Amino acid sequence: MKQSFLFTKTRRNAPTDEVSRNARMLIRGGFIHKEMAGVYSYLPLGLRVLNKITEIIREEMNALGGQEVYLSALQDREVWEKTGRWDERAVDSWFKTELKNGAETGLAFTHEEPLTALMRGHISSYRDLPKYPYQFQVKFRNETRARSGIIRGREFLMKDLYSFSRDETEHRVFYEKTKKAYHTIFARIGLGEKTVLTFASGGSFSKYSHEFQSLCAAGEDTIHLCGKCRIAVNNEIISEHPVCPQCGNDKLAPEKAVEVGNIFTLGTKFSDALNLKYRDEDGKEVSVFMGSYGIGPGRAIGVAVELFADEKGIMWPNSIAPFVVHLVSLASSAKVKKEADALYEKLQKEDIEVLYDDRDARAGEKFADADLIGIPLRAVVSEKTPAGKVEIKERISETARIVSHAELLEMLSGK
Amino acid sequence: MKQSFLFTKTRRNAPTDEVSRNARMLIRGGFIHKEMAGVYSYLPLGLRVLNKITEIIREEMNALGGQEVYLSALQDREVWEKTGRWDERAVDSWFKTELKNGAETGLAFTHEEPLTALMRGHISSYRDLPKYPYQFQVKFRNETRARSGIIRGREFLMKDLYSFSRDETEHRVFYEKTKKAYHTIFARIGLGEKTVLTFASGGSFSKYSHEFQSLCAAGEDTIHLCGKCRIAVNNEIISEHPVCPQCGNDKLAPEKAVEVGNIFTLGTKFSDALNLKYRDEDGKEVSVFMGSYGIGPGRAIGVAVELFADEKGIMWPNSIAPFVVHLVSLASSAKVKKEADALYEKLQKEDIEVLYDDRDARAGEKFADADLIGIPLRAVVSEKTPAGKVEIKERISETARIVSHAELLEMLSGK
Repeated sequence: MKQSFLFTKTRRNAPTDEVSRNARMLIRGGFIHKEMAGVYSYLPLGLRVLNKITEIIREEMNALGGQEVYLSALQDREVWEKTGRWDERAVDSWFKTELKNGAETGLAFTHEEPLTALMRGHISSYRDLPKYPYQFQVKFRNETRARSGIIRGREFLMKDLYSFSRDETEHRVFYEKTKKAYHTIFARIGLGEKTVLTFASGGSFSKYSHEFQSLCAAGEDTIHLCGKCRIAVNNEIISEHPVCPQCGNDKLAPEKAVEVGNIFTLGTKFSDALNLKYRDEDGKEVSVFMGSYGIGPGRAIGVAVELFADEKGIMWPNSIAPFVVHLVSLASSAKVKKEADALYEKLQKEDIEVLYDDRDARAGEKFADADLIGIPLRAVVSEKTPAGKVEIKERISETARIVSHAELLEMLSGK
Repeated sequence: MKQSFLFTKTRRNAPTDEVSRNARMLIRGGFIHKEMAGVYSYLPLGLRVLNKITEIIREEMNALGGQEVYLSALQDREVWEKTGRWDERAVDSWFKTELKNGAETGLAFTHEEPLTALMRGHISSYRDLPKYPYQFQVKFRNETRARSGIIRGREFLMKDLYSFSRDETEHRVFYEKTKKAYHTIFARIGLGEKTVLTFASGGSFSKYSHEFQSLCAAGEDTIHLCGKCRIAVNNEIISEHPVCPQCGNDKLAPEKAVEVGNIFTLGTKFSDALNLKYRDEDGKEVSVFMGSYGIGPGRAIGVAVELFADEKGIMWPNSIAPFVVHLVSLASSAKVKKEADALYEKLQKEDIEVLYDDRDARAGEKFADADLIGIPLRAVVSEKTPAGKVEIKERISETARIVSHAELLEMLSGK
C-alpha cells in the first residue's frame, strides 16, 4: 500500500485524557481512534494487525475441530434469567437497553447462555458430541474504570470457543489440547516468551481454571510466578495455593500481568440451568459437560505495544505487523523515484506486504513515522543508495546495511 | 467439511412465531438461529454464505480505492448532538444505554457522525482528498416491527463506505463509479437480474439518491418500474416524479421490492455540523463534500432465499453458496464407502468447497437435507453408481446424470 493512499496520519500527541501507553502509541501511529473512554475504533493499520491475530487464532481453533459461528450482541433476557445472571447483583457490567415495546434486552458481555440455549436445537444424542463452536464477536462490558487503553475496553472483540462434551473425561482431553493450542497461538503472535500459564479459581466443577497472563508492567493483575516452571498462581487464590502447582516451589515472585486468554471448566452449570441434555448409549438423559475458552485479540495488541516499543514508537512482532516491510523513498531525482517505484511493484508482485512511503515529505519525518508505526524492516531507497540496492534496517536494531533488491526479496519471501 | 462434523442439524419446522419465508427456511436449514424477533445468530453454514458476500463486496470496495476500518458500536452522544440526530424526535430507532457514571451512550444505527469526527484528525489539506473509508459493522435499529426475517433486523451487518471529496464535481465522479460497482456486486452475488437502480429522495444536496431494490414479493417497499430501462422510482417520490427518469416512460409498473443497497449524496451536511474542513490550493477553508454508500449483506441473503427457493428448500446462487458441491454417500458396503471417502479427499485436495454427507442416515433424509440446504450441485455415490463415477444433479434441475470423477472435478475446478 502506498502511504500517500493511506488516509490516516501519524500525530505528535495523543488525546490528553488518554493515560495508557498502548492507546497513546496506537492513536499516534494512526492504528486506532478513541471514541470515548474504553471505546476505540480500528483504522486501516490497526485493522490489519487485528486481522493478523484473528487469522492465527482461527487457524488454531479450526485445527482443534472448532466451527465458526457469529452470535448476536442483543440478548434475550429470558435465557439469562434461567442462570440468574440477568440480575445486576450477579453481573455488574451489563449494558442494558429497551425494545420499543418496553421489553429489556442486554448487550452480551459473554455468550454462554445464548449458545447453550441455541445448542438445544442441535444436540440430542451422544452421537452429536463433542462439538466446539467458536466465534469472534464483540463483547460489551460496562466497566467502572477504563484507563488501560485497548487492554480493558467497554466494547472489545473476543474469540470465545465453547466445548460441549459427553462427560468430564472427554472434556479434560479437549481442555488439555486447548491449553497447548493457546501456547501455540501466543507463541505465533509473538507473546509466547512473555505469556505464562496461570492457575486461577476453578468454580464448582474444577479445582482450577487457567489463565494466560502476559508479564507486563501495565497489567492490572498480579500473578505469582515460579521462575523454574514459568507457570504462575493468580493473586486471587495465592493464599489458598501458595506454592507452584507443578514443582511445589514456595518462592513465587509477584509480577504485574495482563490476562490475554483463559480456559474454564463450566461443567454442567449452564446445561443444567438451560436444559441442554443428550441421550447416552443406554438411552439415559445426561447434562452436556461444558467448557469455555477466551482470547482477547485487541488486548493482545495492547500487550504487544506495551512490551515491544521504545520512546520512538512500536516494534511489531513479524507475525502481527501491519506490513512486513516499510519501503521508504527519499528520492529527489526522477531516476531514483522510478527505482523506488519499481522495487515497490516488485514486492507487490511477490505478494510481500509492503507499506511504501511515496509521500512528498522530509527524510526526518519519514523516519520518525517509520519508527512510530513500527514495521519490522525498513528499506530505504535514496540518492545515496547504489542502483539496484537498498538500505535496510530492522526496527529493533540501530545498524543499517546495504543489500541488493534480490537479497531483500529473498529475505522477505514467505513472510 | 464432513456433515457428521457440522454441529447443526436441519429441522422440520421453524419457530411458530417466525412468519417470514427467508428466516423460516434459513432456520430449518441450520443457517441461522433466532435469538428474538429481528435478532439472528449465524451458524456455520450461514456464516459461510455471509463471508462469501462480504468478500465479494470487499473486493469491489478495494477496487474503488476503499480502505477498510472498523468503528465502534458504542457511540459518543456529543457527536450526534452536533447534527441534531441524538434527539429521538429526529431518529426514532435508537437503542440507548447508560455508562456506570450515568452518562448516556447510543448503539450506532449508522456511522456518519463518528466517522466525520474521526476524519478531522486525518484531513486538513486538499492533498488529503479524496478518501474512501468503509467497514463491515453491525448496526442496531430499534424497529417497531420486525417481521421480515433477516431482511429487517434489529441488529444486522452493514457494509458502509463514506466518500470524502474536495467538491461536488469530484464527488459525482466517484458516485457514478460506485453505482457501477454496486451493479457488479449484485451481479456477482446472483441478484443482478432482479435488482434495479431506483431513484429516491435526494435530500438537500442532490435531486435524487439511488437505491438498489431487488424485486421480491416479500419486499416492504413499493417501487415503480420502467419495463424498458429496468430502472425504477421509489414510491416515496412517485407523485413528484411520475415518469421514468431515463426515458420519460409514464407507464411505470408498481412492484414490491427489498432495498439491498443505497448511495446517497450527503454534501456538507455532516462536515459543516462537525467542522470537517480542508485548505484548498489557495489556502481557503472549505467543507469536505461527502457521500455514503450502504449494502446489507444479511439482507441480500434474505432476498436470495426469498427469490431462489422451492417448497423443498433453498437454491443458492453459485457465488454465495456455503459449498459448491454436496457429496452424498449412500454407501452400504465398505467398498463404496471407501470410494466416496476417496472422492471427498480428492475434492478437498483440489480446494473445491465440498460438504460431504457421510452420515449414517436414510437416503430420503439425506436427499431432503440436500434440497433444504440448497448447495448448487449434488453428487451421489451409491451401490448403484459404477466404480469411478458419480450421479450428479443440479439443485435447480430435476434430471440427474452419471459423470466420471474426472469430469466432476473438471466441472468444479475454479469454483
